[in-house]
Amino acid sequence: MITLKGAEVSAKIREQVDELCKGMTGSTPKLAIVRVGERPDDLSYERGALKKMEAFGLLAESFAFPGDISDEDFKREFSKINENPEIQGILLLRPLPEQIREKDIEEMIQPKKDLDGISPVNIAKVFAGDESGFAPCTAEAVVEVLKANEIPMTGKKVIVVGRSMVVGRPLSMLMLKENATVTICHTRTENLKETCKQGDILVAAVGRAKMLDGSYVGTGAVVIDVGINVDENGKLCGDVDFDSLEGIASMATPVPGGVGAVTTAVLAKHLVIAGLSQR
Amino acid sequence: MITLKGAEVSAKIREQVDELCKGMTGSTPKLAIVRVGERPDDLSYERGALKKMEAFGLLAESFAFPGDISDEDFKREFSKINENPEIQGILLLRPLPEQIREKDIEEMIQPKKDLDGISPVNIAKVFAGDESGFAPCTAEAVVEVLKANEIPMTGKKVIVVGRSMVVGRPLSMLMLKENATVTICHTRTENLKETCKQGDILVAAVGRAKMLDGSYVGTGAVVIDVGINVDENGKLCGDVDFDSLEGIASMATPVPGGVGAVTTAVLAKHLVIAGLSQR
Repeated sequence: MITLKGAEVSAKIREQVDELCKGMTGSTPKLAIVRVGERPDDLSYERGALKKMEAFGLLAESFAFPGDISDEDFKREFSKINENPEIQGILLLRPLPEQIREKDIEEMIQPKKDLDGISPVNIAKVFAGDESGFAPCTAEAVVEVLKANEIPMTGKKVIVVGRSMVVGRPLSMLMLKENATVTICHTRTENLKETCKQGDILVAAVGRAKMLDGSYVGTGAVVIDVGINVDENGKLCGDVDFDSLEGIASMATPVPGGVGAVTTAVLAKHLVIAGLSQR
Repeated sequence: MITLKGAEVSAKIREQVDELCKGMTGSTPKLAIVRVGERPDDLSYERGALKKMEAFGLLAESFAFPGDISDEDFKREFSKINENPEIQGILLLRPLPEQIREKDIEEMIQPKKDLDGISPVNIAKVFAGDESGFAPCTAEAVVEVLKANEIPMTGKKVIVVGRSMVVGRPLSMLMLKENATVTICHTRTENLKETCKQGDILVAAVGRAKMLDGSYVGTGAVVIDVGINVDENGKLCGDVDFDSLEGIASMATPVPGGVGAVTTAVLAKHLVIAGLSQR
């Protein structure tokens, strides 16, 4: 079984970013990372994103607000970032605390700065297969992993397990754009194992530690693991039991070191595209 | 094989509409049907919609424009309808002629009047499974046919053939909302026949006369035909060869007299919902 390493995909995206930057004059694009509270996974993603932007030669700034900030105060602060011409892209770490109406923020964010595809305009574009918007970075990262490894998608059976707005749904639409035959599975799916086994490509985006093992995988299938969980020993792990795939899957992404590493590279690419469109 | 008749489903929706109307005071909701040019299928759909609104005790008015109207002139006229407080719902017959930028109209239409779900706001809601918006009427009509006939969707394998923004894509999302396991097939799908045969429910929305016959259908499956085509003898027909299903499918919708009759009933229901929200 071949391990599909995120770092290699990220390096390829880096080349694309460098290419895009060549034509760029004036100031370097700048990302605003907006965080409310101190959730460990937000902090971890923020660190990863800051590091990646720096590595790619891009600018990034964190805007952190207390976990108990009021809806009104947060909206005022968010507006400033949203309107700031020195910021070309925004990453909002979610979910926001309950007192903030997340829906309002989704509608407020300028689509051209909405690098993670949370605004209705970008969502509608992803749904329609219109590439002029921004798709959620994690969903796009899955497609990038497949493309970078030259894994064909046209006509192939892709099984997506999970139907979230962050991965499952947008990924299904991106896969459709690649001409895959897409099946969306979820908690209510009957005969999940049987269905998963039919996939030429199986994508796990359920958020449950090691939920899928080799018995869910067809011989020779490609397995992409989007999950980031903590196992019973406190160790980072995916939705897939990686070791159990040996001898069954042809290729698979590990966790950590798989899709996660690609997500921030996609974010960087989106930032450069946003930067180019805003000059 | 049981024939699933649209008229019976339409009658059930009529009951819901009457129930909704009970609480309504003041003027009757009014639909604007906006047509550019004289395409026969537009005219046919317009007649059907006018008839249905009248039958349901609702108001409707046609706004027809010459096929060569300029982008600018059409937008000015469309704006008037869009802003008219006496009109609570709009049905835009599409596709529009090439000189009109349809994308702009999709963004112009007020989501609360957008009964056929063409605005980004409504599209994003359908994608997210948020029922506060309007889904495209034809896609919703398919779900109504299944519900009215008490055909379970939860956990079931639904195969949708076709990935248009009018039916295939939104229908897949509506089916997901009903907890079905959804597979989206299209022209590039490998082994289409095999995949279709696995469906507990098979929905044809391809727009090709009698493309699917009994050999694509699993024993006991439910077949929903969204197609409206003309066969080699000039007769109206669906995407499915209805007669070939006998002895294979358990139930199927005919064309005409199937989904089409339900679509305008859904439009009427949307109009009443729009009317209630605009007072």
